[in-house]
Amino acid sequence: MLVVQKYGGTSVGDLERIQNVANRVSESVDEGHQVVVVVSAMSGETNKLVGYAEHYSDEPLRAEMDMLLSSGERVTSALLSIALNEMGYEARSMSGRRAGIVTDEFHTKARIESIDPEPMRQVLAAGKVIVVAGFQGVNDDGEVTTLGRGGSDLSAVAIAGALEADLCEIYTDVEGIYTTDPRIEPKAKKLDEISYDEMLELASLGAKVLQNRSVELAKKLNVNLVTRSSFSDAEGTLITKEENIMEAALVSGIALDRNQARVSLGGVIDRPGIASDIFGRLAENQVNIDMIIQTSSNDGTTNMDFTVPIGELNDAKRIVDAFIAAEEITSVSFDENICKVSIVGVGMKSHTGVAATAFSTMANENINITMISTSEIKVSMVIDEKYAELAVRSLHGAYKLDQ
Amino acid sequence: MLVVQKYGGTSVGDLERIQNVANRVSESVDEGHQVVVVVSAMSGETNKLVGYAEHYSDEPLRAEMDMLLSSGERVTSALLSIALNEMGYEARSMSGRRAGIVTDEFHTKARIESIDPEPMRQVLAAGKVIVVAGFQGVNDDGEVTTLGRGGSDLSAVAIAGALEADLCEIYTDVEGIYTTDPRIEPKAKKLDEISYDEMLELASLGAKVLQNRSVELAKKLNVNLVTRSSFSDAEGTLITKEENIMEAALVSGIALDRNQARVSLGGVIDRPGIASDIFGRLAENQVNIDMIIQTSSNDGTTNMDFTVPIGELNDAKRIVDAFIAAEEITSVSFDENICKVSIVGVGMKSHTGVAATAFSTMANENINITMISTSEIKVSMVIDEKYAELAVRSLHGAYKLDQ
Repeated sequence: MLVVQKYGGTSVGDLERIQNVANRVSESVDEGHQVVVVVSAMSGETNKLVGYAEHYSDEPLRAEMDMLLSSGERVTSALLSIALNEMGYEARSMSGRRAGIVTDEFHTKARIESIDPEPMRQVLAAGKVIVVAGFQGVNDDGEVTTLGRGGSDLSAVAIAGALEADLCEIYTDVEGIYTTDPRIEPKAKKLDEISYDEMLELASLGAKVLQNRSVELAKKLNVNLVTRSSFSDAEGTLITKEENIMEAALVSGIALDRNQARVSLGGVIDRPGIASDIFGRLAENQVNIDMIIQTSSNDGTTNMDFTVPIGELNDAKRIVDAFIAAEEITSVSFDENICKVSIVGVGMKSHTGVAATAFSTMANENINITMISTSEIKVSMVIDEKYAELAVRSLHGAYKLDQ
Repeated sequence: MLVVQKYGGTSVGDLERIQNVANRVSESVDEGHQVVVVVSAMSGETNKLVGYAEHYSDEPLRAEMDMLLSSGERVTSALLSIALNEMGYEARSMSGRRAGIVTDEFHTKARIESIDPEPMRQVLAAGKVIVVAGFQGVNDDGEVTTLGRGGSDLSAVAIAGALEADLCEIYTDVEGIYTTDPRIEPKAKKLDEISYDEMLELASLGAKVLQNRSVELAKKLNVNLVTRSSFSDAEGTLITKEENIMEAALVSGIALDRNQARVSLGGVIDRPGIASDIFGRLAENQVNIDMIIQTSSNDGTTNMDFTVPIGELNDAKRIVDAFIAAEEITSVSFDENICKVSIVGVGMKSHTGVAATAFSTMANENINITMISTSEIKVSMVIDEKYAELAVRSLHGAYKLDQ
């Protein structure tokens, strides 16, 4: 089997942990697998380098930041390779460039454009382990680029795709994806497998583990992703395409998003195209709208409520104010004390009654639902933030996720 | 003027010092010069990385050491470039690879084979400062290599040669080359200029500043070298070809080498080729012989005395023991309490009496000379180590180097 294993900053956080990673890699080799390892910088290293750069400039040149930051992963890859060779496992480190990773030209947030698998194939064919410095590639001019947050995961997924690897294991300090946040519901269970689309909807549950960008890339390249812990032997969670999942659960997990605010627009003038104008302007300004409710009033105006991430609330306010100044909206109010609870499961596609169970569970707990949105595999509800934990625990029980 | 400036580890030892380097570079730009900067790793950084590698292996793979160690210079080059850009001086960092530096395949002690000056010429033509990560290049396979001790100096000299720079300034924490070690003779004076050959003979005086490998390369490439301090505005010492030196001093400096031991062989069998056998065997084993004296005895045997670096004394003992076992040498004794004092100056070529002054100075101080060797520009004497400082000070005065 050809396996790509990615170890994050915590997993390579000090010299002992890098040795621990070498041990895990050697076990995979002993089991007969070909292994490509992708490593992050040792934890704290990237922040240290960013701090150095900020000593000189509030806005350091992006190309230089890439030259600077890419060094952290190079160090880890060399150290891991040294540890493996010392243990008698032939290994070879590769920078992003050596691994054939070509990106676009956008320094500090580049996108991988292509990977030439040949150099890696040759090293694998020689029976060696490859240790790739994650998070980096080169642009067409041959300059080092970095991939932004979660970049090493992207390196691993893209390499797995290019090499048509059987598996891409993402190692962190978390054992996998849980049915809900175990800090809220201690009865939360680790999922054995989950589809790409469910994972994307459960983003908040995987936030510490996987960014959506990586899951999307895995889906696109049809890479079987496993998230697991480098500190235990527990099997992780397999993220794969829906057809690969043997028994799709009705509901896979309950996600909670506390990071949303509600914007309520009153007296919105009722002319054709007004909604398109408002939400178009918000989109142009990179404000991410999630849920929208529109209700007509008697006086020829409408009310519109929508949710935005709290961090984008100020931008939203600024844009709405322009519509108020133009007398197309009468009033606006904001509520940050809300949260969004989501029930996610591919089983919903073929089963009815999932949403009804959610609503009755909320009713039994006397929790008022102020907004609802549904997709093929998700039901999301906006509720008062003070009921967040209660809602998650009740739903977790109602769908028997603890069993 | 096109100037290559190399700043060593102490000069870029912390963030403030890198800012100080940026200030110095900006002054050169303001003076109208084109500037290529070559930087070392921040002091301590390389040792830290070596320590990391030694955690895993007593003999880490050399190719991986190069991947590991080359990161230190990359960090410094990016930081200096960020600092310069923030000050409004357009700058661009370059790894050894980007700077076109191609080496042979010997990892951790590679030799520069060629430099393609085109990429650097283009950046200079665009009016930018170049900041090259020193100490590194790539081999024909595109793998990172490093140049060994003093590697950043070699990078700087080779780049100056390839770009036909007017000057190559080596910045350290020392103001230049002195007539002798100021810790021994406080009246020592900084030299304004000195020839390559004198510098090579005065190696011990330049040991903290320049390795012979760099001076040899500068001589070969006809690069005008200046050693100066990054912490003061004092002019440094120009190291150039003899023809460029306006007034050649009779004697330029007094060097002291305490790192020699004397090996005395007694009863060496007097057969043709015996000296060639002994010294050939020593050379094969990388034992560097400096001075040799042979004296005949009455009994058909000879005595041979020679000096070796103390660090190679054990190797020398082992080899001599084999000749004793073969009954070609009767006895051997060793003396580590010696030192070598050398008077160096191109003026000797055209003036007589320099050696005589040295001998009479020693005689006046009642210092016994046990070995003597001379070259066109040097007189070396082996004396008892306890007279080392006295000999240096007396000779410094005798040749009026304090004036």
